[in-house]
Amino acid sequence: MRIIGIDPGLRFTGWGIIESEGSRLHHIANGVVKTLSTNELPRRLVEIHDGIQAVLADYQPDEAAVEITLANKNPSSTLKLGMARGIALITPALVGLPVGEYLPMIVKKSVVGTGHATKDQVQMMVERLLPGCKITSSDAADALAIAICHAHNVSTGRKWAEGTEDPISAALKKAGIEDPRAVKKTGKAWGKKFR
Amino acid sequence: MRIIGIDPGLRFTGWGIIESEGSRLHHIANGVVKTLSTNELPRRLVEIHDGIQAVLADYQPDEAAVEITLANKNPSSTLKLGMARGIALITPALVGLPVGEYLPMIVKKSVVGTGHATKDQVQMMVERLLPGCKITSSDAADALAIAICHAHNVSTGRKWAEGTEDPISAALKKAGIEDPRAVKKTGKAWGKKFR
Repeated sequence: MRIIGIDPGLRFTGWGIIESEGSRLHHIANGVVKTLSTNELPRRLVEIHDGIQAVLADYQPDEAAVEITLANKNPSSTLKLGMARGIALITPALVGLPVGEYLPMIVKKSVVGTGHATKDQVQMMVERLLPGCKITSSDAADALAIAICHAHNVSTGRKWAEGTEDPISAALKKAGIEDPRAVKKTGKAWGKKFR
Repeated sequence: MRIIGIDPGLRFTGWGIIESEGSRLHHIANGVVKTLSTNELPRRLVEIHDGIQAVLADYQPDEAAVEITLANKNPSSTLKLGMARGIALITPALVGLPVGEYLPMIVKKSVVGTGHATKDQVQMMVERLLPGCKITSSDAADALAIAICHAHNVSTGRKWAEGTEDPISAALKKAGIEDPRAVKKTGKAWGKKFR
């Protein structure tokens, strides 16, 4: 299954495409959709939409995953984040992709093992879990982390039926790293998926 | 010129279509796009998009105007408003319509004459400015007010070139009402328009 992860932002929207084959994860591509703050708002939202749509057309993912934006201290930033997130959710949904949503702490927990990981820790783990990937920015790293979280969520949801292994555990095992989530794992759903 | 005004909201998105012919305003239609709070967020955003798109296809407006959402006291509501507003801005922009944005107080000032008008005052003035219109809800009344504000803004912007009269003044004059904005009018731009 090919998954696009999206980390929405009005200025920088990170995206990352991975493939999960049973328990294995492969990096396909990552990047950032940028908008100019000097452009008018509707134009910037269209640029985010067009940027994501071009990535969807180029890489044809099967499912999408978007980070749940939390309210910022600055209400104006919260509004902007809300708008970018609206576009990030609707663009894959409009072409018929299922869209999963994950809280930042769930993404961090899924990838690093703790919900309070730093940005650097997330990027380092993404590079370990997707050997050979070249990450272009921290927004793209976050987007890849969201895609990995979705792959894990889908995999655990299907594990008992299809007998596949958790792709994160498998990747960690392959890299000779002990799974930091092993103890805390509860089997509880780690995010929401719909459609 | 045919204008669609949109008052975005995650649950209720009001819309209103008017036509401005020189200084005259005509009501064409109004309504509300509703989404079920029990549906998942991406689906609700798609419903708002599809609802607005259907109105655009049915009534073929030339320009769009959207209210600028102000941050709510509740950050979670601000995020939801931001998402709905993102969809309200992008849907007409994606089909190539120019999109104007107006602050709520500019819309109120433009329609009622004061930036602190109540919802009831706005609806009453909308009904006066658009004789014979049947307003289906307060969200639709707000959307019509936004469309009227845009018509006024476009008209004042073009007045000197085309010699047309401010459509709000004309409608008020026709209804025998003194224009409450006459004294305070400064000629300053009352909103932003782009593309």
